[in-house]
Amino acid sequence: MQRTLVKDALNAAGPSDAILLQGWVRTRRDAKALSFIELNDGSCLKGMQVIVDATLPDYPHVAQAHTGASIEVVGRLVESKGQGQKWEVVATTFKVIGEADATYPLQKKGHTLEFLREIAHLRPRSNLFGAVFRVRSRLAYAIHQFFQERGFHYVHAPIITASDAEGAGEMFRVTTLDLENPPRGEDKRVDATQDFFAKKTFLTVSGQLEAEIFACALSNVYTFGPTFRAENSNTSRHAAEFWMIEPEVAFCDLFGDMDLAEAFVKYLIRDVREHCAADLEFFSKFVDKELLTRLDFVLEKPFVRCSYTEAVEILEKSGKVWEHPVSWGANLQAEHERYLTEEHFKCPVTVYNYPRAIKAFYMRQTDGCAEGRETVAAMDLLVPGIGEIIGGSQREERLDKLRAGMALHHLDEKAYWWYLDLRRYGTVPHAGFGLGFERMLMFVTGVGNIRDVIPFARTPGTAEF
Amino acid sequence: MQRTLVKDALNAAGPSDAILLQGWVRTRRDAKALSFIELNDGSCLKGMQVIVDATLPDYPHVAQAHTGASIEVVGRLVESKGQGQKWEVVATTFKVIGEADATYPLQKKGHTLEFLREIAHLRPRSNLFGAVFRVRSRLAYAIHQFFQERGFHYVHAPIITASDAEGAGEMFRVTTLDLENPPRGEDKRVDATQDFFAKKTFLTVSGQLEAEIFACALSNVYTFGPTFRAENSNTSRHAAEFWMIEPEVAFCDLFGDMDLAEAFVKYLIRDVREHCAADLEFFSKFVDKELLTRLDFVLEKPFVRCSYTEAVEILEKSGKVWEHPVSWGANLQAEHERYLTEEHFKCPVTVYNYPRAIKAFYMRQTDGCAEGRETVAAMDLLVPGIGEIIGGSQREERLDKLRAGMALHHLDEKAYWWYLDLRRYGTVPHAGFGLGFERMLMFVTGVGNIRDVIPFARTPGTAEF
Repeated sequence: MQRTLVKDALNAAGPSDAILLQGWVRTRRDAKALSFIELNDGSCLKGMQVIVDATLPDYPHVAQAHTGASIEVVGRLVESKGQGQKWEVVATTFKVIGEADATYPLQKKGHTLEFLREIAHLRPRSNLFGAVFRVRSRLAYAIHQFFQERGFHYVHAPIITASDAEGAGEMFRVTTLDLENPPRGEDKRVDATQDFFAKKTFLTVSGQLEAEIFACALSNVYTFGPTFRAENSNTSRHAAEFWMIEPEVAFCDLFGDMDLAEAFVKYLIRDVREHCAADLEFFSKFVDKELLTRLDFVLEKPFVRCSYTEAVEILEKSGKVWEHPVSWGANLQAEHERYLTEEHFKCPVTVYNYPRAIKAFYMRQTDGCAEGRETVAAMDLLVPGIGEIIGGSQREERLDKLRAGMALHHLDEKAYWWYLDLRRYGTVPHAGFGLGFERMLMFVTGVGNIRDVIPFARTPGTAEF
Repeated sequence: MQRTLVKDALNAAGPSDAILLQGWVRTRRDAKALSFIELNDGSCLKGMQVIVDATLPDYPHVAQAHTGASIEVVGRLVESKGQGQKWEVVATTFKVIGEADATYPLQKKGHTLEFLREIAHLRPRSNLFGAVFRVRSRLAYAIHQFFQERGFHYVHAPIITASDAEGAGEMFRVTTLDLENPPRGEDKRVDATQDFFAKKTFLTVSGQLEAEIFACALSNVYTFGPTFRAENSNTSRHAAEFWMIEPEVAFCDLFGDMDLAEAFVKYLIRDVREHCAADLEFFSKFVDKELLTRLDFVLEKPFVRCSYTEAVEILEKSGKVWEHPVSWGANLQAEHERYLTEEHFKCPVTVYNYPRAIKAFYMRQTDGCAEGRETVAAMDLLVPGIGEIIGGSQREERLDKLRAGMALHHLDEKAYWWYLDLRRYGTVPHAGFGLGFERMLMFVTGVGNIRDVIPFARTPGTAEF
């Protein structure tokens, strides 16, 4: 007999004489002549109510069906007389597959998130984390769908890299050398030529430069893979290992890039609103009461666009007292970003053309800037509650200007010979952006700590499971 | 004016007065009164033939349109009188965006694959590598589609791991310690407690154990992420960094696992046959003449199943002289696997129930084995040309038997406390398998070297780009 998932059983069009359910006991309530068991199999938030009649030959097994036990039920799917569910199952056979005794840590409700992180191997069996990881899966799929539907090609950027100069953050070293006693050269320094890749290697901080290579061949591409930061910051928004999406588009300028980013964010929100409705309902009840309002705000409001220079003027005229002072040339902080989107414009905002000095070497210089006010074609997409959710730029496609940018940032041209080659041979205007997957997941679930949207989070001092 | 991709222009339903094409010059041929340019934008294998009439004001620019240059063309899409294409574009405006001079390495045909690896930043602009990376993207998407359509949830297994005892292969160390002068404890040994994660960490070799955690909560899950082997083997089939797919299914036995693996392989082949027809045609012409025959062989033939013990008997009775001797208890080698699928059964074969001693600790012990012939519920799916393409098993869900397996393999229970917990609390029969993404890609493209199906391959001594 074929297993039926609870999700499908709950959506059944009509009753059924015999279905097979398999899953785990969430709760059990014993009455005089029968027991009610909530069976959850992770296919959806809701469990199926299973009724085991005391006259059933298998009824004695029910006593072993504690919270957390795995069970198998064959029964009739019938309309429920109880409240809160359309269907329930009246068991004809009932079997406990694997017991769970009183030491099972998830039996009682009201555990702290901190405690649940310590049992990350069991927390996906809870309502909250089941919902988080179902949404995580759906969001990842929606990302692929968005790009594949638009003719983008998926590129796997390398994880291990010998580039250590991108300046995006601290990097992890990858090595097979014996740390106790590494080989050393005549100068007594560790001899990296004897390492696995015959040079120093690290974990990647971004796949953008490699994505540019592929955009300059296949036109429209995106990466979606793990990236790393060896930063010793213990905040609710930073992890050492996280996933990032980086589309890159040939023959595209900064405004085309904004169009793509805005369409992308709306598509993702619309997709999870539709496909994860019950899970999002749960988050809006128990995690963040404003969640659905905020998601609909982004879905329904038009995005405004505002140059960095205009944004600074707005912030200066706001009459607000800022923790971080505002002045042309300084980076916008979360408080500024949130003011722009939540209070001033009251809609999502894309800020563009940032000061050259605070941005990366590969961003395209804006033509015709006033002296002392040089900008580059960078953009940040701001949403309420978070501030920046996407950052992108048009890349510098002019060889001489790129070289000037590299000199300004003290980068060695030799390490970027292939990146420069892209500007030597058939160079094209191109642009792209980066979205931190977990940041987007926190936005659509309302979950406040990045550790709680990653299956097994890696943070300073923590690499369990 | 909106850009039209060459792929869409070639599939146009009718002519058009004005379309905008952007891409790179593959070839140019000058006649007396006009020039023919093949414009490729990577959206598909074929380029669009663009005709620039010598009377056009922009015609002088054509002289700069060398192979590799980027160009922009507005023109009329008209029926082609030439052979080999339905549509061509008669230019009304013509512009060179980025030139490519005589040093552009891809102008002449007939470069070796070895040379093209050295210019991995340009090779995606060639026919072969454009096709490889389009198929790579489509295959990845088909993998997600297959599982998502079946209610599987995508899980991101951690890349950085503190488990070093899985025994699947040599591991890369991940560290932020200063290799020149690492902190040392009182025993003079390197003090790993001062490393970023406060212990020794490595790059993962498999996400299976973590996938089991999620299968025991969400029922049906799969991973799809990078995995690593620090093995110093310079073969055409090994890379230090590759992507792997690992589905895991709760309430599933070995035969359910085989059903899934067989359906999966057929689905992927059918998908790329349909969506990458032109690219596969190219491979079958220029890379591997047998390719389409072999793919259809797997699509059309029923899969047979054969126990390891039966397989050994067949091999012993074959009358063949084997390079690696056959006897019960020894691993099957590629020559044996290929004989079974190509010569004996003449169809794809799933071999199952392998000797316990040569398989991993987590595989489920078969009940009722003859003494000295203990087996575990492992299976390998064999296809022609390659041999094993998928390996999987039912996992040991019985706590006592799992402990015995760990003792047999000299594993420390303490390191696996959470893995054992899965058997303590609501344990269920479950099974899964692993598919090397690049191995499947080699199978569907016929490309013989793994370095040529990875954007930027990492192999001993090589981590360029």
